[in-house]
Amino acid sequence: MNPNAKKSYSTLDTPCLILQEDLLIKNLSLFQGLANANNKKLRPHIKAHKSIELAKIQIEKGAVGICCSKLAEAEIMVEGGIKDILITSPIVGNTKLDRLGNLSQQATISVVTDSKPQIMILSELAKQYQTVINIFVEIDIGQARCGVQPGLGAFEIAQEIIKYPNLSFSGIQAYHGKLQGIKSFKERANAIDTAMAKLSASLHYFKNGQLPVKTITGGGTGSFLIDLKLPFLSELQPGSYVTMDCNYSQNEWDDEGSLELISQPLSVLSTVISKPQPNKVILDAGWKSISNDAGTPKLKYGLDSFDFAGDEHGVITSSKEYIDLEIGDQVELIPSHCDTTINLYDHFYLVNTYQHRKLAIDARGKIT
Amino acid sequence: MNPNAKKSYSTLDTPCLILQEDLLIKNLSLFQGLANANNKKLRPHIKAHKSIELAKIQIEKGAVGICCSKLAEAEIMVEGGIKDILITSPIVGNTKLDRLGNLSQQATISVVTDSKPQIMILSELAKQYQTVINIFVEIDIGQARCGVQPGLGAFEIAQEIIKYPNLSFSGIQAYHGKLQGIKSFKERANAIDTAMAKLSASLHYFKNGQLPVKTITGGGTGSFLIDLKLPFLSELQPGSYVTMDCNYSQNEWDDEGSLELISQPLSVLSTVISKPQPNKVILDAGWKSISNDAGTPKLKYGLDSFDFAGDEHGVITSSKEYIDLEIGDQVELIPSHCDTTINLYDHFYLVNTYQHRKLAIDARGKIT
Repeated sequence: MNPNAKKSYSTLDTPCLILQEDLLIKNLSLFQGLANANNKKLRPHIKAHKSIELAKIQIEKGAVGICCSKLAEAEIMVEGGIKDILITSPIVGNTKLDRLGNLSQQATISVVTDSKPQIMILSELAKQYQTVINIFVEIDIGQARCGVQPGLGAFEIAQEIIKYPNLSFSGIQAYHGKLQGIKSFKERANAIDTAMAKLSASLHYFKNGQLPVKTITGGGTGSFLIDLKLPFLSELQPGSYVTMDCNYSQNEWDDEGSLELISQPLSVLSTVISKPQPNKVILDAGWKSISNDAGTPKLKYGLDSFDFAGDEHGVITSSKEYIDLEIGDQVELIPSHCDTTINLYDHFYLVNTYQHRKLAIDARGKIT
Repeated sequence: MNPNAKKSYSTLDTPCLILQEDLLIKNLSLFQGLANANNKKLRPHIKAHKSIELAKIQIEKGAVGICCSKLAEAEIMVEGGIKDILITSPIVGNTKLDRLGNLSQQATISVVTDSKPQIMILSELAKQYQTVINIFVEIDIGQARCGVQPGLGAFEIAQEIIKYPNLSFSGIQAYHGKLQGIKSFKERANAIDTAMAKLSASLHYFKNGQLPVKTITGGGTGSFLIDLKLPFLSELQPGSYVTMDCNYSQNEWDDEGSLELISQPLSVLSTVISKPQPNKVILDAGWKSISNDAGTPKLKYGLDSFDFAGDEHGVITSSKEYIDLEIGDQVELIPSHCDTTINLYDHFYLVNTYQHRKLAIDARGKIT
């Protein structure tokens, strides 16, 4: 039998997300354990898994709080009982500021900025809502997105923050997303060295100016093993390690080229709905079920290859004359990008040997 | 001022979907009018817009019913009051069959098949639920997805359908998605000719066997102007014409190369959250807000170009030294693919000169 043809989830309606509980817990424990052993604070990013329940498990295991990308993610997490959140993208616009004011009355909220004019606005807001907003200055250490350029800029913004009431200067955010996916461990480590040199160039001004930087927050799943050993970063923000995906699975985790460190609990379960040719089957999962921004998913049990065939269809074609998959067979696919694939679903199925149950993806679609 | 810097929607939280009511209604009227004038039935596909309210407007304007891709889309549409639905992908698996049985008791439901063994299963189901299921045989006219190959196959399946109780043979589905996006009108028309020759080769057997084919359903937005004139197709299934996207906008609609036929009511509204360099701004919209399976979105007011910069970020870089967009400015983007972009949101903002209101995307995420 084709190892991809599984019927073990035959009561589940497809396409759906499968999350294997044992592997999930293994990943959560692994990263918290490594953070503890290296005296790093862990503040996992929930932009990937988007689940209140998983965020709570992360905090129970020792995380100091969570990261969210968007205010709407933070709102749903606070509603779910999370008390300490860093929102890692700048919050701009009057509607959003009012929401931030409200939220910061209910939990410890930290935000990032790279703009001096935003400081006064945030201070006015915090005064109006009789609260304190914690601010991290974001430095661009090479990802060429938000953030002030390395050098004097970050220090100047921090000086501005400490001038204003109701604001607390909490430290620096230095994240480099683009190097997370570099497959070679050595090349990734070198790229991180380059990025950290940029951070160092900025820290110099804080030291000279005697302005203490309480926390430097950054890092991701790809760089985690390296970040643990860095002198500067005190708080690490990995997110994808919880569910993983077939892109991160190809990262080498050490000098030896090991690929086995982190488990792969996440998959998309799909059903064969047509077999138009002896060596080709059509699945019920396409772009609406599996994201493609990082490429095509892989079949969990190797062998044949998957291609997208539209919004609601995928195709598996065998290089052989015959593929032993039939209409009704279920197939598991490992998405290439967990964040955007999970964002297409309202819940996971959390499965173990004995049962499965729904696990809500609370922050699905919370993009504002 | 940069024509992309709009503040007219300053009360809307971004990223969000904008749908301009006048242009939307214009598109709906245009396609229904053309269908009427050419004696074609219009059965619009709601897989793109996913809205009960828009489906109802389509039916009020004269559509004979709607198409859905998935059973879950059909369920939400029936719940919303739609009475006649063709589900355009095969329905496979016990859980889904039970749902289909239930649904076919509440509305006129048609399904497609390309597999003989599925016929008996559907008949048993219809008997069990004391209902009738209408079946279209799907023929692959070149898109290489579901469907029997042109020739005798479709006729053989139809003969099987008429043998079984509680099934009604309704006709043939012949859709070719891949040619919808061919930009040149002439090349697209030629591709449709080739596809129709495949359909014709199959119809031959029905004629010889004296088995009447009540309806031949197919076609899309890209082929619509050509489909109107085809002798075979009696029912047309366009979907994207309602909201449009920047890919379909590049299609030539006639021999003269006209691009102006269909309006562009849909856009994604996004806010500038950072200006790291004088000629570069960062937006609050990335892969979680705009799909990329068909490429990058375009700025509504031309000029500069957009690139994805992660799940929650986009970047606009100007080729000039300075871009006159500032933090807080709003920018409208035209997505490259309406179906998958709309699937990321729970509602549109339907806007006209005087007001805006939420319009639910009821079938968002209804992928099972």
